[in-house]
Amino acid sequence: MKVIVSGRRDSITALYLAHRDHDVVAGLSFDYGSKHNHREIPMAQWHCQHLGIPHTTIPLGFMADHFTSHLLNSGGDIPDGHYEEESMKQTVVPFRNGIMLAIATGLAESRNAHGLVIAAHSGDHAIYPDCRESFMLAMADAMKHGTYPGIQLLRPFISTDKAGIASLGHSLGLDFSRTWSCYKGGPTHCGTCGTCTERREAFALANLPDPTTYTHLPPLPPKPAT
Amino acid sequence: MKVIVSGRRDSITALYLAHRDHDVVAGLSFDYGSKHNHREIPMAQWHCQHLGIPHTTIPLGFMADHFTSHLLNSGGDIPDGHYEEESMKQTVVPFRNGIMLAIATGLAESRNAHGLVIAAHSGDHAIYPDCRESFMLAMADAMKHGTYPGIQLLRPFISTDKAGIASLGHSLGLDFSRTWSCYKGGPTHCGTCGTCTERREAFALANLPDPTTYTHLPPLPPKPAT
Repeated sequence: MKVIVSGRRDSITALYLAHRDHDVVAGLSFDYGSKHNHREIPMAQWHCQHLGIPHTTIPLGFMADHFTSHLLNSGGDIPDGHYEEESMKQTVVPFRNGIMLAIATGLAESRNAHGLVIAAHSGDHAIYPDCRESFMLAMADAMKHGTYPGIQLLRPFISTDKAGIASLGHSLGLDFSRTWSCYKGGPTHCGTCGTCTERREAFALANLPDPTTYTHLPPLPPKPAT
Repeated sequence: MKVIVSGRRDSITALYLAHRDHDVVAGLSFDYGSKHNHREIPMAQWHCQHLGIPHTTIPLGFMADHFTSHLLNSGGDIPDGHYEEESMKQTVVPFRNGIMLAIATGLAESRNAHGLVIAAHSGDHAIYPDCRESFMLAMADAMKHGTYPGIQLLRPFISTDKAGIASLGHSLGLDFSRTWSCYKGGPTHCGTCGTCTERREAFALANLPDPTTYTHLPPLPPKPAT
């Protein structure tokens, strides 16, 4: 059993849950040249060490060199506001989940693991094509058929929203101050980008104290009409 | 439109065919630390330059560092003989096609392409799980659903065997002496590994002269009973 760890709150919660329920042989982060990789990867390393799980970072420098996205150091500025807004499309890294899942699958097979855990959740956004259910189901099939052990894709949060994941993380003893969400990757969370907005909302909805230091703390923007 | 080019005979034939039928925006090779990458990639570069197609090499050093396979520089010796033999399993690089297709998909979307060409053919071997039809169909679905343009996976040789591909390459004017097959990656083709055995057979079956310099030229081994 293996888990993908991005250092983000949801992924680290998935790590703690997998550690409770499975024999986790590896924690895995990807350094793909995003503005926030240097913030989240050390946090993933810290939690893996805390749980006694070997951690591996896979360097994917070619994405910054060849891919177009404002999420990458090579791209423009990260937009503020809710994810649903058209501007957040600029943060899409083409087929990022496909690439990370494919590499994790090969690594899982190399280490004699039989499954992968990903923190995909019910609130994942349709603006990211590689978060859609139709993608995830097809990719899970490709992973199963394309490997000897039939690597299984586990999505324990697929029926859980971000507030539910925060509550679960809290109950598993996760120190949220050691998780990173902000796409801008500054010295502290910006408080205004799409991921910061969702992070703040999730703590509020779960009635949990938010231990995060934010650079700005404006009132949360209203949810766009759906 | 984009094509994956490995420098191998089948991939380069696919490149020439795509160049005839489509607007090819990129040729793509992966340097994943195999014993033969340093032989095949310069050949892919040569053919792309010859056709006026930009060529990109994606470095995937992490595969040599973390994956287990005799195909990699970090693995053991390449076995000889027909592919069907159990020993050829040692040359499987876990989920290699999944990883290469996923990365090519992200790159294709970044360059505003709508499709990928892969030289999968009717003789691909079931010992490689990521060559199986069930994998390819699922991966094609994942690529379509996981990208904005719905990147399409094209497999022009799926009903063609290696001899048929060799005949097609010949008719397209491909200089076969500038293609590489041998998994051992020595100064010349070894003549005895699984890929050399198939390369020799394909030229013979297609009644084409074989311009390859082989280190050893023993009689071709009989096909295993199926």
